[in-house]
Amino acid sequence: MDDERIDTGRSETEQAIMDATLRALAEHGYADLSIKNIGTEFEKSTSLLYYHYENKDELLLAFLDYIIDLFVASIDPDADDPDAELREFVEYVLPPEDGPDTCDTIPPAVPFHEDAEPFQRVIFELRTQTIHDEAYREKFGRMESHMVETVTALIRREMDAGNYREMNAEIMAENLMAFLFRSLDVRITGTRPESAHMMRESVYFLLDNVMPKGSHPEDAAREQRDFDA
Amino acid sequence: MDDERIDTGRSETEQAIMDATLRALAEHGYADLSIKNIGTEFEKSTSLLYYHYENKDELLLAFLDYIIDLFVASIDPDADDPDAELREFVEYVLPPEDGPDTCDTIPPAVPFHEDAEPFQRVIFELRTQTIHDEAYREKFGRMESHMVETVTALIRREMDAGNYREMNAEIMAENLMAFLFRSLDVRITGTRPESAHMMRESVYFLLDNVMPKGSHPEDAAREQRDFDA
Repeated sequence: MDDERIDTGRSETEQAIMDATLRALAEHGYADLSIKNIGTEFEKSTSLLYYHYENKDELLLAFLDYIIDLFVASIDPDADDPDAELREFVEYVLPPEDGPDTCDTIPPAVPFHEDAEPFQRVIFELRTQTIHDEAYREKFGRMESHMVETVTALIRREMDAGNYREMNAEIMAENLMAFLFRSLDVRITGTRPESAHMMRESVYFLLDNVMPKGSHPEDAAREQRDFDA
Repeated sequence: MDDERIDTGRSETEQAIMDATLRALAEHGYADLSIKNIGTEFEKSTSLLYYHYENKDELLLAFLDYIIDLFVASIDPDADDPDAELREFVEYVLPPEDGPDTCDTIPPAVPFHEDAEPFQRVIFELRTQTIHDEAYREKFGRMESHMVETVTALIRREMDAGNYREMNAEIMAENLMAFLFRSLDVRITGTRPESAHMMRESVYFLLDNVMPKGSHPEDAAREQRDFDA
């Protein structure tokens, strides 16, 4: 699946500009990004960049929209099997089960994208701009709300089908997302990579022992005690 | 308590330099910080800055050490009442219970510091440097590990005293910290402030319904259902 690309409906040129922007951001970082070094990564004429985008800021906002579209495409609220969709989604974000505690390998948080590691770092760095820039705040806010709402919808569908127990689906979705965000964060920053593996335990404790109807809280507590022992 | 200052053992001059650095960072951000604008915020001669620190990078690393000392002082693993210490700590980080969903008010994550809001934003911005800078990664890593280990120690003490049920204290500490980090993050970035209030629910669900020995999992599940209803 790593070779597949998500089709976000961009034209070939727009897609090539998005790819060039990602490469330039990965190499130079947000602070040193310029149309010039995006142009260096772009196979066609730099003048084409100006034809599509007035300036660097406009291009970066278009790049953010592209990221949002990729994230939106990474989890489907209408998937046939909501539980399977949730499990597939968390596996994209969590570190490999038998992987090292270190940050040496970072799997794709955004599926189907060939440049997973620089992509994650770029998103992390762009997200910092939310502090200073209202447009960034609005776009990242929309993306995060979409993720929470989609996870909530998938949980609700399993509740309605009688497979998950009755719960506050939105709080459960927020908990899952908090674990996933922390898992991504510590691996990108490298501050505490071992936390990512703890987050894996926590995510699967919810998916296996808290959410399914068969998982009586009492059983879950006993399993947690066995696990702890 | 807002007026109190944590004594981190800095000399009066060093403390004044740390305060000036915080003000300069809050005003100019990391990217535009210079010794010159730290000097502008500093009441004494700029030459004193160079007497204490060779350059801006050295000063910023000293500032990070100062932040670490403040965080370390904000939670005491040997507190008389570990449960009370945990509850006091989470209240410093979480949004006010009856506060707005918006980011208009940000309470002190680091207690006893007069400039809570810029302080949090500055830490957030400095933490982004972990991507590029090994020294920042090491220092933030040390700080976060210290927090997790201190929360773990407090949980273990309540388990040993028979007040908390048997559990994996470290995973529980990681869960609490994931909720607290997410709560801080969404308020500083402004991406999804309502998540901060959800994190409050989640933190107190653990503190009230999962961790204490009296909170039978069955009761907890019932209370959650009542809460959800």
